[in-house]
Amino acid sequence: MTNKYRNYNQSYTSPNYDPKKHTLVYALGGLGEIGKNMYCFEHDDEIIIVDAGVKFPDDDLLGIDYVIPDYTHLIKNKDKIKALIITHGHEDHIGGIPFLLLSCTIDKIYAPRFAKALIEKKLSEKRRLSKTKIIEINGDSSIQTKHFRIGFFNTIHSIPDSLGILINTPNGRIVETGDFKFDLTPIGRNADYQKMAYIGASGVTLLMSDSTNSEVEGFSISEKRVAQMIREIFKKTKGRLLVSTFASNVDRLSQILNCAYENGRRVVVFGRSMQNVVEIGLKLKTIDIDENAFIDPELINTLPADKLCIVCTGSQGETLAALSRIANGTHKYVKIIPGDTVVLSSNPVPGNAINVSGIINQLTRCGATVLENTTLSSLHTTGHASQEEQKLMLQLIKPKFFMPMHGEYKMLKMHAETAQETGIPEENCFVMANGDALVLSDGEVYRANTRIQTDAIYVDGNDISGLSTSVIKDRKILADNGMVAVVVCIDSRNNKILCRPGIVSRGFVFIKESQTLLKEAEMLVYDALKAAMKQRVTFGDLKNTIRNTLEPYLYRKTNRNPIVIPVILNHRDAMRKKEN
Amino acid sequence: MTNKYRNYNQSYTSPNYDPKKHTLVYALGGLGEIGKNMYCFEHDDEIIIVDAGVKFPDDDLLGIDYVIPDYTHLIKNKDKIKALIITHGHEDHIGGIPFLLLSCTIDKIYAPRFAKALIEKKLSEKRRLSKTKIIEINGDSSIQTKHFRIGFFNTIHSIPDSLGILINTPNGRIVETGDFKFDLTPIGRNADYQKMAYIGASGVTLLMSDSTNSEVEGFSISEKRVAQMIREIFKKTKGRLLVSTFASNVDRLSQILNCAYENGRRVVVFGRSMQNVVEIGLKLKTIDIDENAFIDPELINTLPADKLCIVCTGSQGETLAALSRIANGTHKYVKIIPGDTVVLSSNPVPGNAINVSGIINQLTRCGATVLENTTLSSLHTTGHASQEEQKLMLQLIKPKFFMPMHGEYKMLKMHAETAQETGIPEENCFVMANGDALVLSDGEVYRANTRIQTDAIYVDGNDISGLSTSVIKDRKILADNGMVAVVVCIDSRNNKILCRPGIVSRGFVFIKESQTLLKEAEMLVYDALKAAMKQRVTFGDLKNTIRNTLEPYLYRKTNRNPIVIPVILNHRDAMRKKEN
Repeated sequence: MTNKYRNYNQSYTSPNYDPKKHTLVYALGGLGEIGKNMYCFEHDDEIIIVDAGVKFPDDDLLGIDYVIPDYTHLIKNKDKIKALIITHGHEDHIGGIPFLLLSCTIDKIYAPRFAKALIEKKLSEKRRLSKTKIIEINGDSSIQTKHFRIGFFNTIHSIPDSLGILINTPNGRIVETGDFKFDLTPIGRNADYQKMAYIGASGVTLLMSDSTNSEVEGFSISEKRVAQMIREIFKKTKGRLLVSTFASNVDRLSQILNCAYENGRRVVVFGRSMQNVVEIGLKLKTIDIDENAFIDPELINTLPADKLCIVCTGSQGETLAALSRIANGTHKYVKIIPGDTVVLSSNPVPGNAINVSGIINQLTRCGATVLENTTLSSLHTTGHASQEEQKLMLQLIKPKFFMPMHGEYKMLKMHAETAQETGIPEENCFVMANGDALVLSDGEVYRANTRIQTDAIYVDGNDISGLSTSVIKDRKILADNGMVAVVVCIDSRNNKILCRPGIVSRGFVFIKESQTLLKEAEMLVYDALKAAMKQRVTFGDLKNTIRNTLEPYLYRKTNRNPIVIPVILNHRDAMRKKEN
Repeated sequence: MTNKYRNYNQSYTSPNYDPKKHTLVYALGGLGEIGKNMYCFEHDDEIIIVDAGVKFPDDDLLGIDYVIPDYTHLIKNKDKIKALIITHGHEDHIGGIPFLLLSCTIDKIYAPRFAKALIEKKLSEKRRLSKTKIIEINGDSSIQTKHFRIGFFNTIHSIPDSLGILINTPNGRIVETGDFKFDLTPIGRNADYQKMAYIGASGVTLLMSDSTNSEVEGFSISEKRVAQMIREIFKKTKGRLLVSTFASNVDRLSQILNCAYENGRRVVVFGRSMQNVVEIGLKLKTIDIDENAFIDPELINTLPADKLCIVCTGSQGETLAALSRIANGTHKYVKIIPGDTVVLSSNPVPGNAINVSGIINQLTRCGATVLENTTLSSLHTTGHASQEEQKLMLQLIKPKFFMPMHGEYKMLKMHAETAQETGIPEENCFVMANGDALVLSDGEVYRANTRIQTDAIYVDGNDISGLSTSVIKDRKILADNGMVAVVVCIDSRNNKILCRPGIVSRGFVFIKESQTLLKEAEMLVYDALKAAMKQRVTFGDLKNTIRNTLEPYLYRKTNRNPIVIPVILNHRDAMRKKEN
């Protein structure tokens, strides 16, 4: 895997890396994947971290709530960490903060206004983390450390107050775009073209730019166009209106709320994440609407159908979200009635397409008209730059070197090709993996010969202690093949088996058909153990004996590989337990 | 007509215009039309002229070679003219220069490199104009007059070295884009995004921007894409290749020539305008190709079909151009043979579609495969900004006021709407006509109450003395209805008709059927004149008598309105002429 990345180009390989002299750039997450973004800039005794995100697990990560980067390198170098800077408030950029703060102390988190509000909300739920200071930054802010001078510029993304970052290092100037798109007719705050071009004119060594939509040609649809389409739906719809969108797209949400209010509809908001965002949006005046626009959920049935608008979470078909419960008839306040119109102002993320499709079927069955985003309907637009916008960023920043970030491998590679089309030489483009490092040396950029330790850490609940790839592998085997536990009681002092082994299984084969099978297995294990214990053995030897006996047998008989769990009880231990 | 423009918005009307204090902006050509661009900036005793173009006549302008603006205002104020600045070398921006120089002396013409070469060529053909000094400018140039400080920025257009202009006036900063497009993967020189954004960041009062493609959505196709498509054709074509494109698109031409050379084809160039451009391009190194690539026209039949590429003019179906003559079999060197491939790297201008279609039919009939530009084939791209590019210009320049220029009325209006989408208030957008003036006063822009004299002057050959709308109207009547001349010989001293009137006609009715008709007409005129001359009459009276008698009669008899031309010969004059 690493080789594939490295082979992309090899022409620049770092001279001897001198940590006192050179600047290191690497990602602990975000390269070769969408999620858990974390980019680090290291010089001498300082590390600047940009973003600390989580990744939401794929379907095959059973029982996993989040995936976060391996923070080992940061924990080892925790005294070097001078700042955590957040570009915007999406979970793949801020979701890792609680876990990072549990791993190492960070005094100051710099975050733009909306992200700050979301982080504060997040940390307030975990009391012991609330002592970290969160400092609000904007396009005019600057941060000075011993080696780094950091500035910002306004960008546009699908959440308010997103920023791009300019990092002046002792070895060159780096621009990290954060997530961005260009929208020439924006809603809400505009991007700062002038500052970007000014930064470009002043000379940029390395551009790190958002690659999410590198495979999408053209220029993305304007948020204003989406607002127009939503406005038209509000104008012509007669019955109740239910609108679902991404909670964090506050500008969109603001448009929807205002459309409702202008068309004489009161609004009720369902779904915790959306209620949070509306609350923050109203406080920060990102959502500018009369408080009268909202109505108590209890009262929605007192309003005529054409005076009500329900705004809710669940546009991705999430099972527990409001829209899903409404579709299934399990929502506390809302049931679909014929004549309802449901607007999905969203695109299903690829993995969610089936769920979304199921919900649309269910809503339609109940008599609702469901309006989805299509090329023609323009009910949603992306928050990420398409190819032409990526080119525009490259033209404005005019970097000498380029490192695509924030994307799967194919996206990074495509982005590098796009950069080459704008005139950046192939050997100046670095397609990297998490843990790969770039060395900045006096205005030049090289691939480092070393790697930073990285991995995906799986978080089950909020426990980040020990879960690793092997646990997930076990869960996958358990899910696919079930487990077989073998319990043997021995007297280790006298090297004797005290009773015949007992076998219990879960998720393996039907109990009935397994009766004889397991009986036979018990006999086999018993014989094998007896043979083994003719000599002096360790517990490990016994466990291996059990596994080596049972696994081939079970596979031969059932064509399956359940996890075999040997449980060996020593007589003395057993006795002591009883005494307790 | 004027009213329609003025009604677009009325909120800003100028306070009393004070020529000592205020700055005036107006167009003598280019608004409400595509062609004869000429924008003027006037303050106190100075006028700066930007561009001096011609317009090519529509089909209904018979016998007219060019249309130019009425220069009266400039002739009246010729001492004020401090500079003529040229944005680029297209005929609708430089074609008027010879006529302007015939009307008033201009000491200095400032033009970018390629335009300068074309203007020099143009003026060298007219010896008396060659004393005007042409000064080369580029993106770094600046011009200082008493009241104006003028700077430039590089843009991309379908001719090399195009510039946008920044005009610092005593009342505010004006940006005039010239013709432009954005191309994020350009061929040739790039646009200077950084400088545009820097100008924007420094504050711009008024933006005047190219409106040609305001009705076209999206972002225009990159020149690089066209080059790729042409390269593919060169790779797979087996027989002879004939490529026709716009002569002035030097970057395209350069791509075509290089494609040919790379694929082992020698090139011959046909058509005077293209030969000129290739010559200039080679001199200026805009076309960078081994001189060996070219071959003498006499030798083309000595080469195998797959070793030859013919590049020629006539992509617009112009009757006298090389391609047209090749299609018709009247070209000196080339005849189409089966297996030839003809590439039209162009789009027909709307009026030329029928001609182009005719030529394609003719070429196909001779056995050639004709490849045209389509959405899929991408064999051509425009030189003008589509909507998204216009928005980008607005975002980079961030003007307070906006005046769409260079386009028909509907295009200007659409461009104003686009500007409003980007956030410029409607009342700050000025859709203007030629001769309408804007007043700049201390950073604010108003509509002037006065108008500058403008008109379309029709040029027949190189004579710009007296041709006006009425001449064209006459030609149109002549073309449609023919003419009837009535010759009468009188003795004005004695108030006597010396002989019966004679009538001659051309283009009116067939001679045969007109015999009786004209006889009768002669009698009628004779009677009418005799009646009229019973009193003392002037020549004018007699002419009117002839017209008033003849026109209704001819219309009654033939349903036509030929031009009636009374020719009255006075006996004394007639005698004197004889004596001479």
